[in-house]
Amino acid sequence: MKRHAIIGAGAVGSILYHLLSSNQELEIDVFAKEERTITIEYKGQLIEQSKVTKVFPSTEKYDCIYICVKATALSNLLLSIKCMCHADTIIILCQNGISQSELIQHPHTYHAVVYISGQMNGDRVIYFQDNTLILPDESRLQPLKLITDQSQLNIVLDPNHAKKQWIKLLVNLGINSITALTKNTAQVLEVQEIYTLTEQLLGEGVTIASHHGIDLPEDIIASIMSIYSAYDASMGTSMYYDVINGQTTEYEYIQGYLNELSTKYQLHTPLLNIITLLLKGYQYKK
Amino acid sequence: MKRHAIIGAGAVGSILYHLLSSNQELEIDVFAKEERTITIEYKGQLIEQSKVTKVFPSTEKYDCIYICVKATALSNLLLSIKCMCHADTIIILCQNGISQSELIQHPHTYHAVVYISGQMNGDRVIYFQDNTLILPDESRLQPLKLITDQSQLNIVLDPNHAKKQWIKLLVNLGINSITALTKNTAQVLEVQEIYTLTEQLLGEGVTIASHHGIDLPEDIIASIMSIYSAYDASMGTSMYYDVINGQTTEYEYIQGYLNELSTKYQLHTPLLNIITLLLKGYQYKK
Repeated sequence: MKRHAIIGAGAVGSILYHLLSSNQELEIDVFAKEERTITIEYKGQLIEQSKVTKVFPSTEKYDCIYICVKATALSNLLLSIKCMCHADTIIILCQNGISQSELIQHPHTYHAVVYISGQMNGDRVIYFQDNTLILPDESRLQPLKLITDQSQLNIVLDPNHAKKQWIKLLVNLGINSITALTKNTAQVLEVQEIYTLTEQLLGEGVTIASHHGIDLPEDIIASIMSIYSAYDASMGTSMYYDVINGQTTEYEYIQGYLNELSTKYQLHTPLLNIITLLLKGYQYKK
Repeated sequence: MKRHAIIGAGAVGSILYHLLSSNQELEIDVFAKEERTITIEYKGQLIEQSKVTKVFPSTEKYDCIYICVKATALSNLLLSIKCMCHADTIIILCQNGISQSELIQHPHTYHAVVYISGQMNGDRVIYFQDNTLILPDESRLQPLKLITDQSQLNIVLDPNHAKKQWIKLLVNLGINSITALTKNTAQVLEVQEIYTLTEQLLGEGVTIASHHGIDLPEDIIASIMSIYSAYDASMGTSMYYDVINGQTTEYEYIQGYLNELSTKYQLHTPLLNIITLLLKGYQYKK
């Protein structure tokens, strides 16, 4: 459990490297499309400016591989990632969404609930806060937890991992949908009718979760809305920045996934339905 | 009926000038925010490049005033426009929407259904097609029709003006909503589910029209969809360009107006409701 590969040097991948590398016994390679130096800023100070990325893919094998590319980019990387695995390699997906682990045939694959908050600003990563990956409470993950406990990365092995993952999915459902489609930042929740609309959308998500066998706390909608209320008014979401920058969004892994489940369980989720369609339309032939 | 003022030198105002000026007996002033030369291109040829705009407002009086500014800009201009009217001045609103004539106290005010298709491209207007204003069939408008019949502008006095205006409103409702919220051009209707969504949205609009006492043809939705199918795939709408350029849209005069009527008549129009909200959210604090 010594050789670690981080695939993707965006905000999450870069910060993950920074956190892990404080355990100097680890050998960590960061892979990107091109060779470049990772630069991370935290509270106005440069905290990382020496690590150079390697060009993906690699012929070397790793004990642990963290996949930090956008959900939309995963399918094209699968074969190359497979070549970087030995029989006991652990793959940790650090992406939005919930459904992607099905794409990976390697047996020891886990989808982390990622609480690492940062943003790309040109070639520089701005690190805001948080350092946690929540993973299922499985004995196979214990060695990984032990060695990361000697770094700044906080891995939590949580028996309620699936529920936590769904809560993150719903957090993304609400704020990503609304900010991307209004092309406005978190301040848009100050509009009372938009606030109510977001609650209704979350309500549809909770209904889907329940039919999918995920038992969420009764006050989950209020909890999520209070998470939003702590956001800075000028804060965008990943999907907001995608739309602002004319890039493909991860809607298929968030709204699209939920919408498919809604169809499967024959549920009435009109808001989710139109929101998914508008996001689908956004990237048609783009 | 000799002195004409065109307020607003965007696509419609500029093209309207071009059409009207072929009757050389008319004295036409075009007003804009600044003095500049109107340039119009038609099928790759410059057809207008000498008329210079005057700076709005004016202390002179006009027999006919065409208001060609965006619907959102109207309220700020009302006092100045009033000063440009004598008792018999005819005011022709050449804007999207339907409700703005209520803002103008001057008695002889008419809202034209505008069929003039063009687009601003920097300082240049690209004139695509059409040269028609549909107005109510009122005797007071006969002199205007007579003198414009000697120009390239085609004024139609139509007893079904109100119905035509509603059809234009519904045409705008469908394609403007979908293109603005997907940030995609008319090609987005190639996505079957988006096509169906647009039909459903128009269905809500037709229900509102019916409760408002507007009797539309039974096949109106199919007719409007066939209008859309004639659009070039790369064609945007005014609201699409507003969103692309980060500008305020006219949603209050299209979706917002219809949504208010829906509330007034206590109708169930869920698509219109969320679309109006998202467009409202778009320009919150922007």
